Amino acid sequence: MAEKDLNELFLDTLKDIYYAEKHILKALPKMAKAANSDKLRTAFEKHYDETEGQVERLEKIFEMLGKAARGKKCDAIEGIIDEGKEVMDEYVDTPALDAGLLAAAQAVEHYEISRYGTLKAWAEKLNMPQAVKLLDQTLAEEKKTDEALTKLAESEVNYEAAA
Amino acid sequence: MAEKDLNELFLDTLKDIYYAEKHILKALPKMAKAANSDKLRTAFEKHYDETEGQVERLEKIFEMLGKAARGKKCDAIEGIIDEGKEVMDEYVDTPALDAGLLAAAQAVEHYEISRYGTLKAWAEKLNMPQAVKLLDQTLAEEKKTDEALTKLAESEVNYEAAA
Repeated sequence: MAEKDLNELFLDTLKDIYYAEKHILKALPKMAKAANSDKLRTAFEKHYDETEGQVERLEKIFEMLGKAARGKKCDAIEGIIDEGKEVMDEYVDTPALDAGLLAAAQAVEHYEISRYGTLKAWAEKLNMPQAVKLLDQTLAEEKKTDEALTKLAESEVNYEAAA
Repeated sequence: MAEKDLNELFLDTLKDIYYAEKHILKALPKMAKAANSDKLRTAFEKHYDETEGQVERLEKIFEMLGKAARGKKCDAIEGIIDEGKEVMDEYVDTPALDAGLLAAAQAVEHYEISRYGTLKAWAEKLNMPQAVKLLDQTLAEEKKTDEALTKLAESEVNYEAAA
């Protein structure tokens, strides 16, 4: 058996984030439906569309590698999303629900930022400039989404309990 | 029963990250032991010491709230660390091991950055300036650690298979 190297690790991690993105596509509509704030709902809906484009970029990279686009169970995203679900259940109909949804979404974004940052760095080492470009586009989108969520958390969401 | 509000969510999330930090303290020595690169091992050892200080800061915040410092099972960190363990097992004795360890560590850092960012924002809303200060110190450390790991990933770790 050939020694496992960075090529294998790159492919494994690509499968990990592919699985994660598909999982996120299932979670986002539920988060949008749960949100009290219209702006938060709109942000989740916008990110759903963006995520579809990110999945397509990953499929292009699988194609470049001559591999079928296939996910690999990602415990990290399952844990992060399970925590988000827990908050949704525990804080449903409370004034803190949107704050909890925002926190869950930002944990998801940071997982993606870390994975796309890693994949981009590895694609550079592996001399895959086209993959670098695609991964960088997604990385920039994830960072922008995280910033938008931070702004929403600071200004738009009402945390006060109804009097 | 009183309506759950941001105070409760802050406390729940404090318990979540407290559990996560304790879990990280268990994982870091294993990651340090596994690392091939001396610089990577040193980085993990340094972060272990830092994490002990971060746990103490969390305990101070529990004290401010008049609550016992207690963790709450954090599925997210368990998933992130399980993924790191998988990489350690699958890539042991391969040239890509350190790259995998670095990626796992950066996923951990990003989880922490997201949680401390959220807690800091909530502490501001809840008018807890001393907690804001403590959370900000930890947030700055986590960001610095993530940057240091990025630099290590770019320069120090040898990804090439032995000829």
